[in-house]
Amino acid sequence: MIPRYSRPQMAAIWDPENKFRIWFEIEAHACDAQAELGVIPKEAAKAVWERGQFEVARIDAIEAEVKHDVIAFLTNLAEYVGDEARFVHQGMTSSDVLDTCLNVQLVQAADILLADIDALLAALETRAFEHKMTVCMGRSHGIHAEPVTMGLKFASFHAEFQRNRERLLAARKEVATCAISGAVGTFANIDPHVEEHVAAKMGLEVEPISTQVIPRDRHAMYFSVLGVIASSIERLAVEIRHLQRTEVREAEEFFSKGQKGSSAMPHKRNPVLTENLTGLARMVRAYALPAMENVALWHERDISHSSVERYIGPDATVTLDFALARLTNVVANLVIYPENVEKNLNQMGGLVFSQRVLLALTQKGCSREDSYRIVQRNAMEVWGGKGDLLSNLKQDADVTAKLSDAELEEIFDLGYHTKHVDTIFKRVFGRA
Amino acid sequence: MIPRYSRPQMAAIWDPENKFRIWFEIEAHACDAQAELGVIPKEAAKAVWERGQFEVARIDAIEAEVKHDVIAFLTNLAEYVGDEARFVHQGMTSSDVLDTCLNVQLVQAADILLADIDALLAALETRAFEHKMTVCMGRSHGIHAEPVTMGLKFASFHAEFQRNRERLLAARKEVATCAISGAVGTFANIDPHVEEHVAAKMGLEVEPISTQVIPRDRHAMYFSVLGVIASSIERLAVEIRHLQRTEVREAEEFFSKGQKGSSAMPHKRNPVLTENLTGLARMVRAYALPAMENVALWHERDISHSSVERYIGPDATVTLDFALARLTNVVANLVIYPENVEKNLNQMGGLVFSQRVLLALTQKGCSREDSYRIVQRNAMEVWGGKGDLLSNLKQDADVTAKLSDAELEEIFDLGYHTKHVDTIFKRVFGRA
Amino acid sequence: MIPRYSRPQMAAIWDPENKFRIWFEIEAHACDAQAELGVIPKEAAKAVWERGQFEVARIDAIEAEVKHDVIAFLTNLAEYVGDEARFVHQGMTSSDVLDTCLNVQLVQAADILLADIDALLAALETRAFEHKMTVCMGRSHGIHAEPVTMGLKFASFHAEFQRNRERLLAARKEVATCAISGAVGTFANIDPHVEEHVAAKMGLEVEPISTQVIPRDRHAMYFSVLGVIASSIERLAVEIRHLQRTEVREAEEFFSKGQKGSSAMPHKRNPVLTENLTGLARMVRAYALPAMENVALWHERDISHSSVERYIGPDATVTLDFALARLTNVVANLVIYPENVEKNLNQMGGLVFSQRVLLALTQKGCSREDSYRIVQRNAMEVWGGKGDLLSNLKQDADVTAKLSDAELEEIFDLGYHTKHVDTIFKRVFGRA
Amino acid sequence: MIPRYSRPQMAAIWDPENKFRIWFEIEAHACDAQAELGVIPKEAAKAVWERGQFEVARIDAIEAEVKHDVIAFLTNLAEYVGDEARFVHQGMTSSDVLDTCLNVQLVQAADILLADIDALLAALETRAFEHKMTVCMGRSHGIHAEPVTMGLKFASFHAEFQRNRERLLAARKEVATCAISGAVGTFANIDPHVEEHVAAKMGLEVEPISTQVIPRDRHAMYFSVLGVIASSIERLAVEIRHLQRTEVREAEEFFSKGQKGSSAMPHKRNPVLTENLTGLARMVRAYALPAMENVALWHERDISHSSVERYIGPDATVTLDFALARLTNVVANLVIYPENVEKNLNQMGGLVFSQRVLLALTQKGCSREDSYRIVQRNAMEVWGGKGDLLSNLKQDADVTAKLSDAELEEIFDLGYHTKHVDTIFKRVFGRA
Repeated sequence: MIPRYSRPQMAAIWDPENKFRIWFEIEAHACDAQAELGVIPKEAAKAVWERGQFEVARIDAIEAEVKHDVIAFLTNLAEYVGDEARFVHQGMTSSDVLDTCLNVQLVQAADILLADIDALLAALETRAFEHKMTVCMGRSHGIHAEPVTMGLKFASFHAEFQRNRERLLAARKEVATCAISGAVGTFANIDPHVEEHVAAKMGLEVEPISTQVIPRDRHAMYFSVLGVIASSIERLAVEIRHLQRTEVREAEEFFSKGQKGSSAMPHKRNPVLTENLTGLARMVRAYALPAMENVALWHERDISHSSVERYIGPDATVTLDFALARLTNVVANLVIYPENVEKNLNQMGGLVFSQRVLLALTQKGCSREDSYRIVQRNAMEVWGGKGDLLSNLKQDADVTAKLSDAELEEIFDLGYHTKHVDTIFKRVFGRA
Repeated sequence: MIPRYSRPQMAAIWDPENKFRIWFEIEAHACDAQAELGVIPKEAAKAVWERGQFEVARIDAIEAEVKHDVIAFLTNLAEYVGDEARFVHQGMTSSDVLDTCLNVQLVQAADILLADIDALLAALETRAFEHKMTVCMGRSHGIHAEPVTMGLKFASFHAEFQRNRERLLAARKEVATCAISGAVGTFANIDPHVEEHVAAKMGLEVEPISTQVIPRDRHAMYFSVLGVIASSIERLAVEIRHLQRTEVREAEEFFSKGQKGSSAMPHKRNPVLTENLTGLARMVRAYALPAMENVALWHERDISHSSVERYIGPDATVTLDFALARLTNVVANLVIYPENVEKNLNQMGGLVFSQRVLLALTQKGCSREDSYRIVQRNAMEVWGGKGDLLSNLKQDADVTAKLSDAELEEIFDLGYHTKHVDTIFKRVFGRA
Repeated sequence: MIPRYSRPQMAAIWDPENKFRIWFEIEAHACDAQAELGVIPKEAAKAVWERGQFEVARIDAIEAEVKHDVIAFLTNLAEYVGDEARFVHQGMTSSDVLDTCLNVQLVQAADILLADIDALLAALETRAFEHKMTVCMGRSHGIHAEPVTMGLKFASFHAEFQRNRERLLAARKEVATCAISGAVGTFANIDPHVEEHVAAKMGLEVEPISTQVIPRDRHAMYFSVLGVIASSIERLAVEIRHLQRTEVREAEEFFSKGQKGSSAMPHKRNPVLTENLTGLARMVRAYALPAMENVALWHERDISHSSVERYIGPDATVTLDFALARLTNVVANLVIYPENVEKNLNQMGGLVFSQRVLLALTQKGCSREDSYRIVQRNAMEVWGGKGDLLSNLKQDADVTAKLSDAELEEIFDLGYHTKHVDTIFKRVFGRA
Repeated sequence: MIPRYSRPQMAAIWDPENKFRIWFEIEAHACDAQAELGVIPKEAAKAVWERGQFEVARIDAIEAEVKHDVIAFLTNLAEYVGDEARFVHQGMTSSDVLDTCLNVQLVQAADILLADIDALLAALETRAFEHKMTVCMGRSHGIHAEPVTMGLKFASFHAEFQRNRERLLAARKEVATCAISGAVGTFANIDPHVEEHVAAKMGLEVEPISTQVIPRDRHAMYFSVLGVIASSIERLAVEIRHLQRTEVREAEEFFSKGQKGSSAMPHKRNPVLTENLTGLARMVRAYALPAMENVALWHERDISHSSVERYIGPDATVTLDFALARLTNVVANLVIYPENVEKNLNQMGGLVFSQRVLLALTQKGCSREDSYRIVQRNAMEVWGGKGDLLSNLKQDADVTAKLSDAELEEIFDLGYHTKHVDTIFKRVFGRA
């Protein structure tokens, strides 16, 4: 976890304080269920809730000696609870606590990330409607293609992050399970009722079958989804970096007063936030792999997954939270330069209308191949710097044999390209 | 695609024949919709369906010249359809065909993989019920822990592949979209109705917003899910490899007559199928990463994703199909040696009952810490090779002060560990 | 291996024909050494060389029955050699043949890749000297910074591929080892002399210690190096894609006669080759990971690495060979548009000289902070579209208090930025 | 950086204190060189060395305002140096400082890692000689094969880590470069002599050509090498985990007094250190990928690499340092149980001698195929639990027709398998 790329709320999930709080709740709820079953005295369960406390530093000190975190926690808890503490954790194994806790933390993290995505969706929607009809150049292969609108760009990312929201919801559901099944998952020493009770209290589903550990395919899926979301962040970041490059300059990250772009070149305004997001995406994506390698634990479990999760649990969620928030900020404050948008749109001498000319020719009975050759011939001239497409076409006998000047002029109309923007907006936003 | 790791049905999806067949259907359905709209003559659409054909070799020859696959296909198609061919592909862009086709192929692949998983689930269920009560040693960290049953092992994998089935269904849904939106996705030259028509006919959903290409986050998710499934395959493969190792030998891959294990050591029966599956899992997992890197295409699209998909489209699906089928075969025919299972169970001199002893002591009023020390003291002796746990405990005054011989003997009972197997089976299979 | 991305010479390395040829040589050389040692009759070794043959189809047929490739090969070999064939493979294990063969193939592949890099280096050097003094805009963060030259761009890639050449040489050395050490690497049944003899004959070093298999850290290193080379290819590909984008258009991939850029937009010239290379780089990079996962084989070996190597052996080398050759072709034929280069250079109204102004002010006694503020103030005006930097500075009293018009004009001189190009060229090419 | 998996010396490299110390040295040495060239006053360079200081908290405070780390540092430095501070950093760009500093840190990290590997090599060598002739079962595919020795196991890892040492040395050399080349690497505002001077003083080589940044292929190689080393750690960790599993129990991680293996099962001694190392290896390996993705920066540079390096710079080196140290400790203190080693060796009823029998039969004139069938027939009986191989062979007429009882007994001799251990040790250690 890099402080510079952390936000407090997400970071707090991974604090020892939060972890031990969850441990305490799991143990205390389990005591309730055990008391209900008559396995332990009701007073014991009550004592745990009433006197149960813990102190992180003390737990650390005990763990340094016993080299076992759950035993250290239970020992410290017993220092507060007293004699009844011997009824705590009965029939349970450490993983019951550890794995259920991890899942609670991942659910908490997912909830923050869902809120992050909602904020991003809101920003994207605002900017999409703001620039719904800001016609700009569409580019395939980095080459001018046909016009789109700035609003469509935002809408495309909105649709993508809607999908990411769905994926994250599914991933959250995947990890929202609870296991209190004992040493190797057989409930030999603990009744399944305890698991059901704790699950319900912690807002989780019962893990249908655990083998000491909660199966790690759930977590592999979770971190893979974070990797996909990070990849979407990268796509939006790269789009903005492209729009900001000097020769394009259709958009620019907000540049605050007092900010210095370069120690050497004072005029520079660099898209450093989106470049930063590009790098962060690489990290979150990379964390998917060890999560997948964690699945194949030996027999009923080994503990190789644990160290991996100490890294990627915090690192992936904290980084993604930071990245989503930064991206939302970039989107909400993105400066768009309509005059540059228009300048770029006109840069190609009307070449972007070439396909429409081609279609018009075929509709006039020209074969597709002939139409293609005629248009390409004229297009290549413009591309080479000679004139603009409309003027050139008006002087090409093969064209004028099929299309009048008026017909040609009608083709060179931007409105033609935006006539279905409403349709697309309705699909994406449910309104236009 | 490695022939040795391919099965014909899945490989056929990636044949040029299947690809061009899908292209043809997309184009022909699009013609129908265009004819409906009055954009092209109804006769043209009819002609495409009636006379439309293609020949892979001829398309290849044309492509070698024009260096563009869709144009090559359309040229070949025109050779069969004749003059009306000029109405084909009107207002569309190559990606409309390519991307919709890829998604159809991925859906077809998902359907085979779903059937593969169903077969695996069936095999796992059969073996789970067959060995529901075959008590065997449960192992954490590779160390004997407490008893489980062979059936529980199979049940655990069954639950995991049920989840994989759900994930794959979701991934299939993710990629089951159709885009016929023209050069940069604006429907400038084609009515959205065409897209709706083709989507319905091809069993797909309409892509809400495309930017020439169908957004690649969908595919990133798809291949990530394949990576997770591969990781589950690895877990099962590793379990079998462990069970087959000489010192354990509780299970063994079926060894057919005539098969030779080693050119040097004729007695060897190696778990080569599951070792092979372990390697295949590494490959399928690796393909998730370039799929994620494919998301951040430039502006409205670049074509860097295409070469990646030429590899991972076939390689990931074909390999996973082969791996699932091989795994099903291994599971269905796995030889289990009950006598070795039992021998291993008894190997530890009853140490696996230590936790139960510990619990019994605490229930008799002994503190958790004292109980732990007493049990560990006796356990360490057995571990060191001295006696078995039951006998030793009967001679430990601290124990006999709390537990009678009869009580101790009752503790050393395997039935204690299997009493909730039915509960778990009901959770996993809906029956016990 | 995708035919479209394969070249015959590299593909041939992975043909069964080449593989069995290498197997034959290993076995025959081993026979020579065994005969020298008196372990087998000299006539037997002679017979192997004289009558030894194999037929791929026949080996496949036998393997289908015995399910063991080396036994199948030896059986087929025996069909040609006759009775003396029983002396072949004595004391050896399959892996002796398989692993030594794989290393020979990887060495052969490395030799082709080294030649590929040499060709690329030659193309880069030619273009570097051709455009040594073609001053162009240097860009950091996609934003105009200060002038560089096109030649420096090529030189930078030349230096990078020189490093890649060194890495590949080291990787080639890593895998150029031979193991003929028997069942578990102890030479129990074969004298180390055989290994030394075969190694020398095959151009390899003796593997100091093998455990049936040649250790896979060697291969992990090899495929990691291929991944790094692929990443360098991506950097060069991305540079060209940027230079070709419509708004920049300083360079363009060669566009052959008859080539069609788009089925819809006939004017388009897309950087499809470098986009393709970007995708191929993702694949080669991805193959490094399973190669690393292959290292941790169980005990003296398991065979999980084998399936992985059936994929990445051919796929990584064939793809990289194709990519390097394609890149060399792109570089050699890259069209550079000097007029666009110059236009872009002048686009920023002289802002690129801002740092030099800043330095001049500090040298005149202005504090760094004051200088920065003065320059930024003027730069921001130009950035906002008002005038050019030189004119504006001449009207800024804070500037003119320190710098005369003549001094200012001297600062706005491109030659200032190219004065050390020769120094850099000498470092990179050993000549300027 | 996870405190639990960090060691102070390596962590200190990534402290702001160390970073700013290196920045200071770079700037101060650069001043010396500039003074030598007469670009700045000699007194200024002297003042920097004499009065130059910095305070981390103060730099942080300034950075919070100016949002630029190098400017913040220079501002703080100026607060100590005074007026002469305006000569600091002249003609340099931030990356000159940042990139050279990163390389110094990576070199420092490599030096610690090299020392770690040396310690590991020493431990492996000690254990190898200690157990040079401790004959144990060699296993391929987890199945008993032929005898090896414990010493050979250690020797195999020793050879692997010797290779890792070489790789790390090469990787260290790769990143030991210095760039002081100004805004886009052209030395427009700074003489190459400054770079040469700083490089020499900092123990680095001059970067032949930089483009504002030091090219990231160097770092990609560095982190790939760390990934390979991590994979070797995993191999050794997995070996120990296998040897410790209950059914094998030939070795055991040292179990300190007071350590508790399980909260539930007091008898358990789990290989948690090597399981932990398995997980750590997954992380270090994963970091290689974003390092490779960092290579393709845009044009003369973008800053996407920076956030990645803030993670993987510390995380990869600190984790690997911890892992190597932990592994050395595990190896040095590994408990080996010779009695279990021997028990396992005898477990297979002599089957491990089967290949030798096969060889003896062929040397007596039996065809390879016949020998194989005869041996396999007897081996399968033993495998099925009937007798031991030697006794069975003595009763097989096909065998006794070729081999006398005495000859058979000579075959069943462990010494046969260890006769070349000295040869191998000499290869690995230079002594036997």
